[in-house]
Amino acid sequence: MSRPKIEFWYEFASSYSYLSVMRIDALAEKAGVEVIWRPFLLGPVFLAMGWNDSPFNIYPPKGRYMWRDLARLADKYDLPFRMPSRFPRNGMLAARVALLGVEPGWVAAFSRAVMLANFAEDREIGEPVVIAEILAGLGLPAQELLAAAVSEKNKLALRRQTERASELGLFGAPSFRVGEELFWGNDRLEDALAWALR
Amino acid sequence: MSRPKIEFWYEFASSYSYLSVMRIDALAEKAGVEVIWRPFLLGPVFLAMGWNDSPFNIYPPKGRYMWRDLARLADKYDLPFRMPSRFPRNGMLAARVALLGVEPGWVAAFSRAVMLANFAEDREIGEPVVIAEILAGLGLPAQELLAAAVSEKNKLALRRQTERASELGLFGAPSFRVGEELFWGNDRLEDALAWALR
Repeated sequence: MSRPKIEFWYEFASSYSYLSVMRIDALAEKAGVEVIWRPFLLGPVFLAMGWNDSPFNIYPPKGRYMWRDLARLADKYDLPFRMPSRFPRNGMLAARVALLGVEPGWVAAFSRAVMLANFAEDREIGEPVVIAEILAGLGLPAQELLAAAVSEKNKLALRRQTERASELGLFGAPSFRVGEELFWGNDRLEDALAWALR
Repeated sequence: MSRPKIEFWYEFASSYSYLSVMRIDALAEKAGVEVIWRPFLLGPVFLAMGWNDSPFNIYPPKGRYMWRDLARLADKYDLPFRMPSRFPRNGMLAARVALLGVEPGWVAAFSRAVMLANFAEDREIGEPVVIAEILAGLGLPAQELLAAAVSEKNKLALRRQTERASELGLFGAPSFRVGEELFWGNDRLEDALAWALR
């Protein structure tokens, strides 16, 4: 019998996605659930709701709260956190590279490293040089992967994945999908894993 | 030494406020934390963010998700739930009455009864006759309280409480406040109580 599965939809620019990227592997392992990593872009999803920026920037009280909440949660989960000097950062290149790592299995380690760069080290994850350093740090062929990341085929693959997110009713990140059941937000990671075991 | 305190800000029209209204007393009791009930109106708070309706109505994917999420959570907490045939209902009269119950101490029982009427019994909590029935069911003088609820003094008190919510940086409900620390959403009830005990 195959293990139960959870689809993990996340965006590298998303602050709450940071928490789930760092937490999901250990929790899923413990639960005996397989994680299917689905990097995507929130930008087009937000645009469809009429937002041309993060809602945390559009609605300042929400934004002020989010940063405080994130600091508290990082503390609770024992994760490093430093307020990024720019938000949101462009997660497109990271998402394109991450997509390449799904099949060979380095997507999780790469995603954690990018998230730490953005939310703990205040680095510009939109810059190819930063992504190249992260790839090299994982022992991966940085230049080759950066080239493959921007191939037409791979760009299209990310576009399709993002369109699929909207089709599935996703409206934010992180989101989790178990069968037809959708869970939104880092707060629902445990519930989604429990659902996978039903 | 006085017990630690938590301010509980909620709105009778708010679906996630329903969950917290039903849960907070038992959890706070267990934790040894005193609950200060703060009914307020989300309408003016949302208007300040440019929303003239519930964001769950303005953004349909969020709304579809919310109802499913609410049904799952009600199940998890063992609370009754029936999808209201109207949403959001006008919570102004209920909030005005609730305010009268803070001092004499019946606000919690009244708030739970109104929330059950809205989210488990699909009743029109905006109607005085429904609120009167709820008050009578609690052994309270319904007509006297309905009259006091719409006195200028009490209307002003609710307006002030709602203005205070915005001043404190609240942008949604339920919200919890412990000292200067703000927690938003039913998901944060346990964290807020833990914070009160620090």
